[in-house]
Amino acid sequence: MTAAFDTVVMKFGGSSVADPEKIRLVARRFVEARRRGLNVVGTVSAMGKTTDSLLALASDVSPSPNPRELDMLLSTGERIACALVAMAIGDLGEEAVSYTGSQAGILTDSTHTRAKIREIRGDRIRASLAQGKIVLVAGFQGFSRDTMEITTLGRGAGDLTAVALAATLGAACEIHSDVAGVFTADPRLVPGARKIPSISYDEMLEMASSGAKVLALRSVELARNHAVRIHARSTFTDEEGTWVQETGMEKAIISAVTHSETDVVFTLTGIPDRPGVAARIFEGVASAQVNVDTIIQNVVHGRAEMSFSVPAEDAGSTRDAITNLQEELGAFDVEVNRELGKVSLIGAGMRSHPGVAATMFRTLADLGINLEMISTSPIKISCMIDRDRIPEAVRALHAAFQLERPPEVEPTM
Amino acid sequence: MTAAFDTVVMKFGGSSVADPEKIRLVARRFVEARRRGLNVVGTVSAMGKTTDSLLALASDVSPSPNPRELDMLLSTGERIACALVAMAIGDLGEEAVSYTGSQAGILTDSTHTRAKIREIRGDRIRASLAQGKIVLVAGFQGFSRDTMEITTLGRGAGDLTAVALAATLGAACEIHSDVAGVFTADPRLVPGARKIPSISYDEMLEMASSGAKVLALRSVELARNHAVRIHARSTFTDEEGTWVQETGMEKAIISAVTHSETDVVFTLTGIPDRPGVAARIFEGVASAQVNVDTIIQNVVHGRAEMSFSVPAEDAGSTRDAITNLQEELGAFDVEVNRELGKVSLIGAGMRSHPGVAATMFRTLADLGINLEMISTSPIKISCMIDRDRIPEAVRALHAAFQLERPPEVEPTM
Repeated sequence: MTAAFDTVVMKFGGSSVADPEKIRLVARRFVEARRRGLNVVGTVSAMGKTTDSLLALASDVSPSPNPRELDMLLSTGERIACALVAMAIGDLGEEAVSYTGSQAGILTDSTHTRAKIREIRGDRIRASLAQGKIVLVAGFQGFSRDTMEITTLGRGAGDLTAVALAATLGAACEIHSDVAGVFTADPRLVPGARKIPSISYDEMLEMASSGAKVLALRSVELARNHAVRIHARSTFTDEEGTWVQETGMEKAIISAVTHSETDVVFTLTGIPDRPGVAARIFEGVASAQVNVDTIIQNVVHGRAEMSFSVPAEDAGSTRDAITNLQEELGAFDVEVNRELGKVSLIGAGMRSHPGVAATMFRTLADLGINLEMISTSPIKISCMIDRDRIPEAVRALHAAFQLERPPEVEPTM
Repeated sequence: MTAAFDTVVMKFGGSSVADPEKIRLVARRFVEARRRGLNVVGTVSAMGKTTDSLLALASDVSPSPNPRELDMLLSTGERIACALVAMAIGDLGEEAVSYTGSQAGILTDSTHTRAKIREIRGDRIRASLAQGKIVLVAGFQGFSRDTMEITTLGRGAGDLTAVALAATLGAACEIHSDVAGVFTADPRLVPGARKIPSISYDEMLEMASSGAKVLALRSVELARNHAVRIHARSTFTDEEGTWVQETGMEKAIISAVTHSETDVVFTLTGIPDRPGVAARIFEGVASAQVNVDTIIQNVVHGRAEMSFSVPAEDAGSTRDAITNLQEELGAFDVEVNRELGKVSLIGAGMRSHPGVAATMFRTLADLGINLEMISTSPIKISCMIDRDRIPEAVRALHAAFQLERPPEVEPTM
C-alpha cells in the first residue's frame, strides 16, 4: 500500500504537547510533513506531566495499585493527547485520525505495566494512510491477544512505539523533543558542546545507558535490530538534528562525554564467598525489575565485597530485595551512597585507540578527583566520582578530547 | 451463568468519585453489596468535573472539534474513574476488573457524541461475575461494529449505561447520587419536601423532562421499555431511596412539584401562516439536535406568532437554526427571553381528577404571578413564569396540594 521511504513516523514527547498552543504547533509539524508529500504517522506522549498525575492519583487511591488497572488508567494519557492533536490537524485543513494502541494493532505480551511489543498489525494504519490521512497512534500502550487486555510498555515506551511503527511501515523515525539532537556533552555544562550530525546505534546505546536523555535505550536497541534510522531533532526548529544509524558518518575516536547524577551506589560487605552467591544477589535484585549498572567485586579475607549502582528511582525496590537476600544468605552489611555521579566517555573509535582510558584517568586525577568505581565496555569508559565534581569533570574531559572541534571526516564508502 | 435477581448494577455519578477518599468510599459500597451475596456490576462517571475539563481542553485546541476525536477524548474520563475504583476494591479484599465500553460489549450505532446503544454483549461481564469479581464498566461510551470506532452516548448517558446493563443482565439498577431519592419538590426550596418511596415510570419521565435532575430522561425511558426497576438513592447513606417501577405503590393525585430555571424562550412573530411552515421551523430546530419543550402558537391577522422553550445549553444552536430559517422562509422577528422559569405539577392521578389545573392557576394567581406559557400532558401541567418567582411558586403549590403529607395508601393488589 505505502512504498518504502515515503512514510515518516514522527514522535513528540509530553513537553511538546503540554498545552493547547503547543498542540497546535505540533499539529502544524505533521501538516508540513504531509504537504511535503509524505505519508505521516504520528505518536505523541501524554500532555506534560499527565502520566505523573495519574500515577499520583493511583497511589492516593491505593497503596499498591493493581497492575492491570494501572494500565487501564495510564493508557488514557496518550489517547487524550492524540485525539487533541488530531482535532488541531483537522483545523489546518488535513484529515487526521487517532488510534489507541489496540486499534493501531500494537500487539504485546500480557505483562502489565512493562509489556513487550510482539508485533504491529499495521493494516488499519496503512488503510488510513492510503486515504491520505495523518494517523496518530497513542504511544506507550498495546493490547494482549492472550488476555484481551490493554497493556502499557513501561519507561521510555513513547520512543519505542515510534521505532516499532517505523520498523513495521518501513519508515524513517523522527523523534522530536526540546533538545536539538545528540550533543558531545550536555550544553548546559559545556558551552562548547557540539551537535553530532550522525552517530552509530552502538554509541547511542552506550550514551542512553550512561545518562544521555535524548532517546530511550529500548528504542535504540529496537532501531538497531530492525535497521530503523532515527532522526533526533527539535520540536521547535526545522534544522537537522542527529541521525542515529548503522554507521556514524564520522570517524571520531570519542563521540561524547555523558554524565548522570541520579545513580545510587550500594556496597555490600561481609558476603559469604561461596560459588553462586553473586548470582543469587543479582537474581534477587533483577526480580525486583531493577536495572543494575556498574558492578565491582573484590574478595578480602574470604569475604566478598561488592558495589553496584542503580537508578535513583529503583533504590527503594533494591533495598527491599537486599533485605530479603539478607534473610536468605545470612547477615552481611549494606551501605548506600547517594552522593556519587557518573561521567562516561563514549566512542566507537576507542576500540582501536588504546590510551583513551589513561587520558581520561589522568584528566580527572589532575583535578584531584577520586575515582570510586570504574566500568568499561568496548566503546565506553565510565567513572563514578563525587557528584559535586561532575560539571568540572565533564568540561575537562570535553576539552581533553577536543570534542568542540568536528572530527576529520573520512568518507565511509 | 447468573440467575435473575441475584445481580445488581450500581451506578455512581461524578461527584461521588471526585477524589481519592470518595473513590474509596464508593469501593466500599460495591464490596458491601458483594458481601451481601450479590453479583455486582458497577458503572461510575468521570471524576468530578473531568468531562467539562476535557471539553474545555478540546475547545481550546479547536474551534469545532472533530466528533470522532471528541469521543476518543471524552471516553477516557470514565475509564480513569473505573480503573481507580477497581484498584480501591482490590485493597478491600475483593477482586475487581474494569472494562471500557467496548470491552464490556456495549455496541452502539456510529453517531459520534450521541450514539444510541444497539445491544450489550454481556459475555465478558458474565464470565467475570462467575469468577466472583466485581465488574466495573466505563459508562457513557460504546463501540460501533460498523465503523470499528469508539463512541460516546451523550448527555445523561451514565444512567443510561447502568439501566442498559441491568436490562441485559436481568438485574436491578441502583443509581447513587448526592440526593437521597426523588422528592415531592426540591428540598432546598421547600423544607417540608418529602422523599417519595415509589413512583411510576411515566411520572418519573415527566419529572425528568421538567427539571428534576435525579435521573436522566433517556435512562427512565429505557427502564420503562425493559421493565428495569431503578432504585435512586444516596451515595452516602444506607437508607432506602426511591423506587422507579411499573406502578407507583402510592395513589397520589399529585406526586411532585418540579421546576427548572434554565429554559430559554424564543418567540417568533410575523411568520407567514402557510401550511407546513411550523413543521419546517421545528425540522430546522430539530436538525440542530435541540430538544424543544413547550410550544405555543397563535395566529394574528394572518401572521403566526409562535413561542417555544429550549434548554439554555441549546440556545446558541437554536439561534443559528433560526437564522438559517429566516433566510429560507423570509423575514420574521425573533425575541429571546432568558428571564423565565418553569414550574410543573406531576401526578398520574391527575388523569382522573379534574380541577388540578384550576387549583394550580388559582394558587399562582393569588401570588400575583403571571402565566407566560402553559403546556400540559395527561400527567403533567407546566407553567412558564418569571424566573425570580419560582421559589415561592414551588412552595405555594407544594402546600396547596398537601405534598408534605404522605398520601393514603391503597393496596394495589
